[in-house]
Amino acid sequence: MSRRGLLGLAGAAVGAGVVGAGIGVAADRAIAGATASSAAVYPFYGEHQAGITTPAQDRLHFAAFDVAADLDRAGLIELLHDWTAAAARMTQGRPAGKYGPASGPLDVPPDDTGEALDLPPGGLTLTFGFGPTLFTTADGKDRFGLASKRPEALVDLPHFPGDALIDQLTGGDLCVQACSEDPQVAVHAIRNLSRIAFGRASIRWSQLGFGRTSSTSRSQVTPRNLFGFKDGTANIKSEDTAVVEDQVWAAAKDGAGWMAGGSYLVARKIRMVIETWDRQQLGEQERIVGRDKGEGAPLSGGTEFTEPNFLALAKSGGGTAIDPDSHVRLAHPTSNNGAQLLRRGYNFVDGNDDLGRLNAGLFFIAFQRDPRAQFIPIQTRLAKNDLMNEYLRHVGSAVFAVPPGAREGSYIGAGLFA
Amino acid sequence: MSRRGLLGLAGAAVGAGVVGAGIGVAADRAIAGATASSAAVYPFYGEHQAGITTPAQDRLHFAAFDVAADLDRAGLIELLHDWTAAAARMTQGRPAGKYGPASGPLDVPPDDTGEALDLPPGGLTLTFGFGPTLFTTADGKDRFGLASKRPEALVDLPHFPGDALIDQLTGGDLCVQACSEDPQVAVHAIRNLSRIAFGRASIRWSQLGFGRTSSTSRSQVTPRNLFGFKDGTANIKSEDTAVVEDQVWAAAKDGAGWMAGGSYLVARKIRMVIETWDRQQLGEQERIVGRDKGEGAPLSGGTEFTEPNFLALAKSGGGTAIDPDSHVRLAHPTSNNGAQLLRRGYNFVDGNDDLGRLNAGLFFIAFQRDPRAQFIPIQTRLAKNDLMNEYLRHVGSAVFAVPPGAREGSYIGAGLFA
Repeated sequence: MSRRGLLGLAGAAVGAGVVGAGIGVAADRAIAGATASSAAVYPFYGEHQAGITTPAQDRLHFAAFDVAADLDRAGLIELLHDWTAAAARMTQGRPAGKYGPASGPLDVPPDDTGEALDLPPGGLTLTFGFGPTLFTTADGKDRFGLASKRPEALVDLPHFPGDALIDQLTGGDLCVQACSEDPQVAVHAIRNLSRIAFGRASIRWSQLGFGRTSSTSRSQVTPRNLFGFKDGTANIKSEDTAVVEDQVWAAAKDGAGWMAGGSYLVARKIRMVIETWDRQQLGEQERIVGRDKGEGAPLSGGTEFTEPNFLALAKSGGGTAIDPDSHVRLAHPTSNNGAQLLRRGYNFVDGNDDLGRLNAGLFFIAFQRDPRAQFIPIQTRLAKNDLMNEYLRHVGSAVFAVPPGAREGSYIGAGLFA
Repeated sequence: MSRRGLLGLAGAAVGAGVVGAGIGVAADRAIAGATASSAAVYPFYGEHQAGITTPAQDRLHFAAFDVAADLDRAGLIELLHDWTAAAARMTQGRPAGKYGPASGPLDVPPDDTGEALDLPPGGLTLTFGFGPTLFTTADGKDRFGLASKRPEALVDLPHFPGDALIDQLTGGDLCVQACSEDPQVAVHAIRNLSRIAFGRASIRWSQLGFGRTSSTSRSQVTPRNLFGFKDGTANIKSEDTAVVEDQVWAAAKDGAGWMAGGSYLVARKIRMVIETWDRQQLGEQERIVGRDKGEGAPLSGGTEFTEPNFLALAKSGGGTAIDPDSHVRLAHPTSNNGAQLLRRGYNFVDGNDDLGRLNAGLFFIAFQRDPRAQFIPIQTRLAKNDLMNEYLRHVGSAVFAVPPGAREGSYIGAGLFA
């Protein structure tokens, strides 16, 4: 009994690695939640890891892991082998192990936990990364003989003005980003990778995201964040191949050869003070963002995808139509020496606090070629002057080197250990 | 600019209140996440509140509220009026207020927060309930002159063996259950109701659920819980109209006349010790549940919907095929004087604990005519003997009287204040 076997054909129909708009796979409500995109299957092996330029799926489960203190280099390699094998299976809509949740011997634990047994593949991607502490621990120890392989671009992020980081939401030796159209498929993947890692690595922190806040393809509409504004209008899109080459993928000439075809992932857990935001007048919200709320057009005029004109004057009152300290201006490439990010963030709500306020916000994820030239200068500028800061609190932070994709028969990160 | 206006036609096509299997509304990927079911619209006004026998939607945001200490009876009625008006709008795919998030005056806060602006209605239902403390506070105070109206069936739940309840996850004066195919639509609804209640009621606890664990219609496949088993095979289905009348809806003759056509909601936050469960052998997992993991058939034989035969003998080893202390036997109507529940629970993951274990489980919701004859005796039996208890921890609990549906022009709970 192979997981999701019934959907093999539908999956194959969109299995070329790209989900376009309006694909002609009928929604099949006999399978809970099955739709064209939930039948999508992305290749696991390849030049790059999936889950970066892949059209951003709707749901996220992200986990940062710490490696057990007693694991050695051979044990770490074995873990990466095991994760690679399970990820290659699960992303293709198959169970984590060869027997699956219900068809193995009765006297051993199942090699898959089963909650995704009847679900379509859901466009699942699993993207793995290596944190700075995998190379050099805080006390300078070279646990796995990897210190000399640490890429210069994998810097520890500096303290930014206003940072309110919580240690338990920050850092990590390893990360796994699970994205899917179905949250149960993403949760199933993280749970099974955690199960497989038992005794070798354990979850340091984790995050569910219920709604994507960026498009990474022109085939997708721009979603909205919890401020109610479109987010990611100016995001790097996978169709912009020259920009992707220049701003997303690390190259051999950048230094660490094993990272060629990889990227650097910055994650930031950003609490939004939504109750205060919701009491702010509409005009002020738009001034802070620099765009209008309905269409998402820059306040200098036009429609959503019109380039903002930061010199255009306001119709009344003097000054520019777009406030110089608005989010759109400070984050714009022209304010940052042309630096851009490929964002892949998600809205989250983690219950509520003791005052009845929703613990809500944006789990920011960005991929880039070099955080020193991209996330760090952009965030430095935003943290100093962005009008939006009054409504934001950065509570978690991490950076990971995301190695290139694995060749079939090899494993994720093999180049690091070569 | 009316929210989701573009999908009006698709919504109307399935607007009769029932989502069937294989409805011919094309998936429209130009709108993020739109599918046949995400275009569904359920009527808000009617004999019963929606969200009970409605085919269980895939995602949940549930919130329990406490009423502010200084709110009086007139203020409570006004809040219910305001919630009714907003709920009637949002469930039909419209913004919470008349202007919406982006089209109102610039110098006042928007009357909708905007994150659902471009999303289809998502089959949103909003179901309201009244907790015991709304009628009589713990110190016996009759805050709103409602003590004499408290239904006898609205009992405080007893302490069950093994309960490990956390006060901040328990109780509440009011509740709102938001169910939708799209989690962002459910979150948007709870957030806006909380915003509208500002200063009058605040969230005491809240819960997101990412995957439904029960079917409430024969048109739905049975989903799986985080033990990897099908859940809710024997659930009350909306098509069983005689059983629904007998077991779900309160009647005038039950006592509290204002509750006729209403129901009683029991919520239990149940942590699952999934890491321990995952190390249990397959045969033992099946013995605990009383069903096989793949098909969900009772261990006495047959297929998923075959009635269990608790007297059938095991093929080997003596004893019955279904363990007398298995979950399926203890929860079965024949073990409980025929009592049944209409379950509408959801899988949840709330991050992880300090040991790297996922905070995962089942947010149990059940509707019934009288908890004294249904949930309480069933849970008493389960709490004492269920083999599954080793892997469960009840950490939150609440009970609410869910009044009948409102007539158009009236408001939810009007009968209580008549």
